[in-house]
This record gives sequence, structure tokens and C-alpha cells, in this order.
Amino acid sequence: MGDFNQSVILEAIRRSGEGLSRIELVDATGLSAQTITNITRRLLDEGLIAEAGRTINGPGKPRVTLRLVAESRFSVGVHLDPAVITFVLLNMSGNVVARRVVRTHDRDPQRIVETMAKTIATLVDEAGVDRALVAGVGVAAPGPLDSAKGTVVDPPKLDGWHRVPLRSVLAAATGFEVTLEKDTTAAAVGELWTGDTAPESSFLFVYLGTGLGASAAREGAVVTGSTHNFGEIGHIMVDPDGPPCACGARGCVEVVCTPQAIVEQAEAAGVLLDDPEGSAANGVGERFTRLCALASAGEMSAFEVVRRSAGHLAVLIAVLSNVLDVDRIVLGGPFWAPLAEIYLREIPEELDRRSATRSVRTLRVDGAIVGEDVGAVGAACVVLDAVLTPRASDLYLEE
Amino acid sequence: MGDFNQSVILEAIRRSGEGLSRIELVDATGLSAQTITNITRRLLDEGLIAEAGRTINGPGKPRVTLRLVAESRFSVGVHLDPAVITFVLLNMSGNVVARRVVRTHDRDPQRIVETMAKTIATLVDEAGVDRALVAGVGVAAPGPLDSAKGTVVDPPKLDGWHRVPLRSVLAAATGFEVTLEKDTTAAAVGELWTGDTAPESSFLFVYLGTGLGASAAREGAVVTGSTHNFGEIGHIMVDPDGPPCACGARGCVEVVCTPQAIVEQAEAAGVLLDDPEGSAANGVGERFTRLCALASAGEMSAFEVVRRSAGHLAVLIAVLSNVLDVDRIVLGGPFWAPLAEIYLREIPEELDRRSATRSVRTLRVDGAIVGEDVGAVGAACVVLDAVLTPRASDLYLEE
Repeated sequence: MGDFNQSVILEAIRRSGEGLSRIELVDATGLSAQTITNITRRLLDEGLIAEAGRTINGPGKPRVTLRLVAESRFSVGVHLDPAVITFVLLNMSGNVVARRVVRTHDRDPQRIVETMAKTIATLVDEAGVDRALVAGVGVAAPGPLDSAKGTVVDPPKLDGWHRVPLRSVLAAATGFEVTLEKDTTAAAVGELWTGDTAPESSFLFVYLGTGLGASAAREGAVVTGSTHNFGEIGHIMVDPDGPPCACGARGCVEVVCTPQAIVEQAEAAGVLLDDPEGSAANGVGERFTRLCALASAGEMSAFEVVRRSAGHLAVLIAVLSNVLDVDRIVLGGPFWAPLAEIYLREIPEELDRRSATRSVRTLRVDGAIVGEDVGAVGAACVVLDAVLTPRASDLYLEE
Repeated sequence: MGDFNQSVILEAIRRSGEGLSRIELVDATGLSAQTITNITRRLLDEGLIAEAGRTINGPGKPRVTLRLVAESRFSVGVHLDPAVITFVLLNMSGNVVARRVVRTHDRDPQRIVETMAKTIATLVDEAGVDRALVAGVGVAAPGPLDSAKGTVVDPPKLDGWHRVPLRSVLAAATGFEVTLEKDTTAAAVGELWTGDTAPESSFLFVYLGTGLGASAAREGAVVTGSTHNFGEIGHIMVDPDGPPCACGARGCVEVVCTPQAIVEQAEAAGVLLDDPEGSAANGVGERFTRLCALASAGEMSAFEVVRRSAGHLAVLIAVLSNVLDVDRIVLGGPFWAPLAEIYLREIPEELDRRSATRSVRTLRVDGAIVGEDVGAVGAACVVLDAVLTPRASDLYLEE
């Protein structure tokens, strides 16, 4: 139980922010004073925590506050999105200490891996961080993944990526240990790590990226599924009158709810037709942002398109939350911000109407804590999680 | 950890069937010899296990085999279905020692509770079982439930049942502790309890009853969701060309996949039109069975209806398994048996085609171990589970 207790203690200290005394740790963790003393001594020796002042609280020895040393370990998070690769360097407190964004139209896996390795090296060097303190690189990639092999399997929006062994190739190119996780799962880890979700509370994370995905957390941990592919939702039908889908059905999430699909709905409705770029795929992000801006500014036909898309997303969220029976919904991902205002106004009521548990409770709907970088930040948190659970790393081999 | 270890030991002995020696328990559980000795002594004192012969295995003391005493505790399982109430009495080995079925068209909750209490008393008495050995009554009811209050909330197929406080009313009427669980969740508990699912393996249970529901198990435990309402699937769209649903969409599970809906599809296709009972709701079970018999016998138009319904169910299972990322699918419930042959032939291939993880693994599709009584048996297993996890009962107050 030593490793587990150590992670419990580190996590309690991290979550406290201000730090905790050994006595407070006994209260917070339920572990014995002796265990707390032994483990905190080891954590002090390793520099993961430090003494941060004494509190005199009545008679007896003053209490020493133990605080996480934010700069004791770092991790790199990489979000591999079809259009843009985001890199962050996180410290142990979960703060972003450096960030880089690389836009590329290149689809060649080998060249992308080279770009990633070069950018990671620059990110760490320019932040002045000792490479030895970097616990590893977490990569968030579109699913499905072959988690056992560490490969990205035919992601729908990444042409040319067929069974790319990203984990091993990137590890070789960077010299760091690499962890591969689905972007949507990483996003939920990021929300858990940075948010204030009570461990007993569960949430569904609906991820709005180039594609849509879902993830969930329960009892303080993200649900990964048996192959780390939890939350593939592309072929859930949300509109029986929607366009045909390659799967043979109609109105699936993939052809109705993606930014690309919403932009096409806007164009079909006569909105955005003055766009000089036309329907070029690379302009989706820009046109989507412009559509949302028009809608928020009260342009009626644009608003109507976004409002309808909120209704479609409410159908999807109802399907997922009725199956999963979670306490609340978190919406996030790179395309969330421009939709937030309208979606947070439209979705809760429609969701409540469709909730199987509406007579038992009202589902809360929140925006994610982390913004458009949630995939990269989440991927870096996956690595920090592994530091907090020592069996997954070799930092504590002396034990 | 004492209670937890005790349940681990009891569970290991139960699963072994033949019994285990103390040395084998050390191997099977990873607990120390001293802990095994202490806890098995307590279990022997309480009569839950017994010594069942000695094995001489080389030099040294002969090994004493410890076996579960199947008749040391019992539980009652009740499945409340709109058309039929099933009662079973289970022993600690999970064997059905008595069974009763009550068909009722009565919808009045008070009279149904009286019938239930009378039948439970008869069931226990006629089996010659001491009431003091009955650990409790488990009731499987259609969801959604208000689990905190122990009430059945407006179940769609039970007219007149509005917030019925079934748990407390039935406890008062029977004198037993009552546990209320969703029928679909109870079914998964029954599968876990009686099947040989490895604890590390996960499954999705698709429950075919008067309505359809889903449940799931992971790491040896059933996923209940945060309000015990996991698996409400009635409004997942499976056929964009299907009939309109009260929710505003078209082709939802509730109007496409239920026995009632399948019988109506058969009638629309000209099958079963010679049925003297017409479309009377109470004849659905009989007409459904007849349709399946015709289909299995090779009557083409009947077969075509059942085959199409398999396709609809495959869409539903694909939605659920793509979200949940489970290792295998279990199909069961009161309406499963007549469909089993055709569904097990049709569904796996269609499911594989729609599986997001098809490049990573092939999903297994199995029929449930327990037959049409799975709801009642599962509800009784929920109670036995509570016996094995002593904090949920008062059998071990001396600890």
C-alpha cells in the first residue's frame, strides 16, 4: 500500500493549495501519524514537497506546513489535432509554464513527429527547465487508439495516419517517456486535475473539437474503457431528418454536430455566403468562429443555425447522460468558447426535458475550466497523474 | 479492512465451488495466513462455511477444505414486471430453491404490494426455510427509480405507479429488509454472480423485457451510475425511418425495439394477422413468442421482421459499446430466449461493422447465463452481495 498512500498524501497536499501540516494530513487521509511521518520524510528528501512555515496553534510543538514544490517536476502535453498541434509545459501544480502552437497542413506522420520533437525540445529549453525534471510527454490524439501498441489507428480526420506507432516513435525522437491518450479522455483528466470536482461526483465531458467525443469521470478517476477508447460517439443519431452518413444511417453526430457540419448548415441557410474562402476545408475554424460571432451579435439566421445545433447537441448529451447517469455535464474543447454563451442558455432546458432522471434531480451543465488547450493540458496531466502514482513511473525505484 | 477481507474470502470460497483449503485461500486472496485463520474461524462460528474433508498432500498436516454452507443464508428476489411478478428464493450458492410466478392485470400499487408480501411469505414457508436465515428481499423494478427514497418513479409501462415508496411499504408488509434496484442492473448482478466473468473483464448487458434497458459491469462490479439509474436507453434512435416517438424524434428504441413494437411491425408486414386476439396489449408476450417461432421455423416474412429487429438492436448495441468500450456484450431478459438463435447469428457481424474498435479487437456477443428469471435472480443476488459485504448488513455486528 506504500505507493498508493504516497499518492494519496501528495494529492491531498496538492489539492490544499496552501499546504497541510502532518496533523491535517492525518485528518485528510485517514492514514496513521507514523505513515504520514515516514512518507512525508521521503517526499521531502526527493524534493517533491517542502516545509513552508510553522503555525503555532495552542500549546505543544508548532505545526510545520508541507507544500508541494511546483517546480520539482514538469510534464509536456501535446495535443495532436488535424489542423494545429498545441504544446504545453506544466509544473506539478498543474500550471502552464510554457506554451507553443504549430499550425501545419502537413499530413506526413514522420515529418509531424520531427516537428513535435523539435518543438518539445525548444519548449523545455526556452523555459529553462532541466530535462531531468521532465517526467514525460503526454500526447492527446484523436481516437480510436491501439493503446496496447501505442498506435494511432486510422483517425477519421487525419488522412495518411494508419497505425502510426506514435508512442515509440516520439519516445525515440525526444528521449522522453511518452504516454498516448485519446484527446477526449485527456480533456477529462485535465478537468479533474484543475477543477474542483468532488471525488464522489461524476461528470460527462463532451469534447467539441474537429470531431466530437465524450469522456466521463467517476469517483475521482476518468473512465477509460477496456481499450482506452471510451466515448466514441460519432455515429449516435441526433436528427432523423439529417444528412446521410457513411455508416448507412442519417443525422449522426459526425454529419450534424461537427464544426464542419455546422458551417455547412450555415451556408445552406444562406449565412456566410459572402465568405471569400468558400468551402475550403482549411477555413472551417475561421468560418465557424465568424458564424458564432454573428449569432452572438444577434444576426437572426446565424443565431438560428447555432440554436439548432444546440438542440442537436442536447439530444446527444441526453443519450449519453441517460446511459451513464452522471451528476453533471462539462462542455469543452477547442471549439467550445465561441459557442459557450448560446449553448449554456439553450442546452440545460432541452436536456432536462429529455432526462430520464428529471424527477430525481436536475443535471448541471458547465463549461470546462481549461479553455481551448484542454487536450494538451489534459495530456500533460495524464503524465503528472503517473508521477503521483509511482508504480507508473521509475522515479521511486529506491522504494 | 476486516470486512472487505472477509468478503474477499467468502467470495473466493463461493466461486471455487469445491471449496478451498486455508493454504489455497492464501494463494487465491493474497492475504496473510494469520488473517485467513482469523476470518475463517469467525465464518465457521457463524455457520457460513464448514469444514468439508481433509486432503493429505505430501508430508505435514492434512489440509482442511472449507466450503460455503449453501443453506446458511437465503434471499428473496422479486421481479416486478408490468405483466408478471416473478419470485425466487436463492441460497448462498446462488441456486434457486423455490420459485413462484404471479400474473396480474392489477395496476393498483397497494394491492400489488399485498400480493407480493403474501407470495413471499408462502415462498419461504413452503421451502421450509427459517425466516431468520433470510437476509432480505431484493426487488427488481423498471426504472427510473428514486434510489435515495426507495421509490418507483413513473415507470413508462406501469400506469398508476407514481412515486410508489416500494422499499418501505414492502418492508413493512413483509418484515424483511428490502433493497430496490433497477431490473436491468439486477440482471447484470445476476450475470456477474452466476457467470464466470473474469473480474478484469467488462460487459454490457442488454436487457430485453417489456421495455429495453442496459447495464454494465467493470472490474467485478456493476456500474450503477450516480442515482442508480444507469442505462436508460429508450430514446436512442436506431432507425431514422422509424415511427414517431413521444419525445419528438423518430425511430427510438422505445418505438422500434420493444416486443410490442416488433409485434406491430409483424402485423404491418402481414404476419400474425390470423391472431384471434388482435392487438390487445396483454397478448403481446404470446404473439411475440409465436412470431419468433414462425421466424425460427423459416417462415420468410416472420423471419424478415425478426432479422430487421436484430439490425435495429445491433445499431443500439453499437452506440452503447462504442461509448462504454466494454469487452463483451451479454443479451438477456424475459424476451431473450425466443430471439437467441436468430439474434446470435445476425448481430455479431453487424456490430463488428459498426464497432469503433474493430481494428483493435472483436466484440464477443453472448446470451445471459440466467434465463427469463434473470431480473428476480439478480435482485436476490443484490441482497446476497450485501451479505458478502458485511457493512451493508447487520449480520456481523459483533466485529
